[in-house]
Amino acid sequence: MMSPELADVQEARDRIADSVHQTPVMRSQHLDAHTGAELFFKCEHLQKAGAFKARGATNAVLSLEESEDVAGVATHSSGNHGAALAMAATIRGLPAYIVMPANASAVKKSAVAAYGGEIIECESTLAAREAMLASVLERTGAVVVHPYNDPRVIAGQGTAALELMEQAPDLDVIVVPVGGGGLLAGTALAVKGLNPRIEVVAVEPEGADDAFRSFGLGSLQAQTNPNTIADGLRASLGELNFEIIRKHVDTIITVPDAAIVDAMKLHWTRMKQVVEPSGAVGLAGVLEHPERFRGRRVGVVVSGGNVDIDHLPW
Amino acid sequence: MMSPELADVQEARDRIADSVHQTPVMRSQHLDAHTGAELFFKCEHLQKAGAFKARGATNAVLSLEESEDVAGVATHSSGNHGAALAMAATIRGLPAYIVMPANASAVKKSAVAAYGGEIIECESTLAAREAMLASVLERTGAVVVHPYNDPRVIAGQGTAALELMEQAPDLDVIVVPVGGGGLLAGTALAVKGLNPRIEVVAVEPEGADDAFRSFGLGSLQAQTNPNTIADGLRASLGELNFEIIRKHVDTIITVPDAAIVDAMKLHWTRMKQVVEPSGAVGLAGVLEHPERFRGRRVGVVVSGGNVDIDHLPW
Repeated sequence: MMSPELADVQEARDRIADSVHQTPVMRSQHLDAHTGAELFFKCEHLQKAGAFKARGATNAVLSLEESEDVAGVATHSSGNHGAALAMAATIRGLPAYIVMPANASAVKKSAVAAYGGEIIECESTLAAREAMLASVLERTGAVVVHPYNDPRVIAGQGTAALELMEQAPDLDVIVVPVGGGGLLAGTALAVKGLNPRIEVVAVEPEGADDAFRSFGLGSLQAQTNPNTIADGLRASLGELNFEIIRKHVDTIITVPDAAIVDAMKLHWTRMKQVVEPSGAVGLAGVLEHPERFRGRRVGVVVSGGNVDIDHLPW
Repeated sequence: MMSPELADVQEARDRIADSVHQTPVMRSQHLDAHTGAELFFKCEHLQKAGAFKARGATNAVLSLEESEDVAGVATHSSGNHGAALAMAATIRGLPAYIVMPANASAVKKSAVAAYGGEIIECESTLAAREAMLASVLERTGAVVVHPYNDPRVIAGQGTAALELMEQAPDLDVIVVPVGGGGLLAGTALAVKGLNPRIEVVAVEPEGADDAFRSFGLGSLQAQTNPNTIADGLRASLGELNFEIIRKHVDTIITVPDAAIVDAMKLHWTRMKQVVEPSGAVGLAGVLEHPERFRGRRVGVVVSGGNVDIDHLPW
């Protein structure tokens, strides 16, 4: 796999421009006062299909050669990437086969179904997901679009940071949640390619801290038995992602689930924005490590808003 | 009391411009497809203090003569106007005395307190509120700013519609919730003053339908024992409000609480916006009376977002 570069992120932006939203950047006087920082929230919960994942999935689907006789696209996903890929597949009129753990949230399953994706359930382990995906590929002849360990997906996810740097000039730091590492790797490529002076800080749940450990040890560590409310961040960091992250990311910090829930509630009550746990991890990082951000201009990527409002974590 | 006119709304806009937000207008592809209309949501849940009430309260406070020796401002309110008046009072450095029914929501009480307002609790009947307010005025010498039956408040509330007509040109109809009638009267003045071709449709909960009855009968009917989830719309229509509404509003429709909850959930899940029950009443009207709106460009005022997220109505 070729590692993507800034130019790939820029090309992705042109490729997906007509298919995804340029999401707004929101401010909050209350949260600025609360943190002592100037916070610029990049609202990817307002993205199509409710998460930044639409960017990478759309870039991957639109990167398929028009001439290719593609039988469909397939992936495994706990939710947001699945819905995003199903949505992107409709642009090319392709079937989408989405392998989902049986314990994926109902709202994420119904989003996949709403875009016409075919859901194939499996156990929630990485091994079970990969085995089921292999069998789906064999049965359907579909092309796999991995949720994060894919250069087209990484380049697509980086387009949010390109927009954010234009919408909020002169940022000192950009804060991004990390799970599999697609958003973080794409963001790091975009930010360091355009303005290496901007710090890139990743935030990870304590209960799924493989990126934190991998970054510290300098070698890829697997995530076994993740235990966090942030269901979008339970995946193991990808190899391609890790190579980019170790090169371009400045630091990775971790946050407990309690801080994630607090941040989520602040998004809801103060900004009136429905943000899912994984989407609130950036703000949780700012709240947990205030000294790092005080007095600075901080871009925070709010990565998703797909919550089951009938089952809230409080 | 002088009845306000379009010019008062326009002056209010200039007066409050530096003190309140010009809120954004949001679209939703899903809700457009669902209703067959083009919907333009005026996001007053993103207004300061979380509701359009900031406009009227700020206009009232800033209309007090600078030279006047004002001892403070006071009102009775189930919540959003109280928080808005407490917020507006801080602009002039005035104390704010807010009479609230003991059963007002915790989140609305804490908003008043957060702006430094002094809360005085009373029974939830209109008579009890007015008696308590009278005693507060006697004790403090404060100036009363009624939540809706006040020309300065009506003019202030109308500024949201002035913005909406610029942000979403060529609307066919503007849909507004009605409780005491401040927002509706102000909107009607703004809309009919500038472009009488635009239809003004008010939406009211079935369980607090005094505006609907008053409008139909041509004389002001009191609201006794309101029974609706939309706690911001339980008040009785004001006299001044009714005079403006009967002159300038095209129609009033009612919606059951079930439709309000459905609309609220759509705001949350599809638009990722935290909207309170009263704030979702406009969309509820569109959903309940689809034939009235299909194929038209519809402005919908989303009036507030102050929900107690620990106690959701589902």
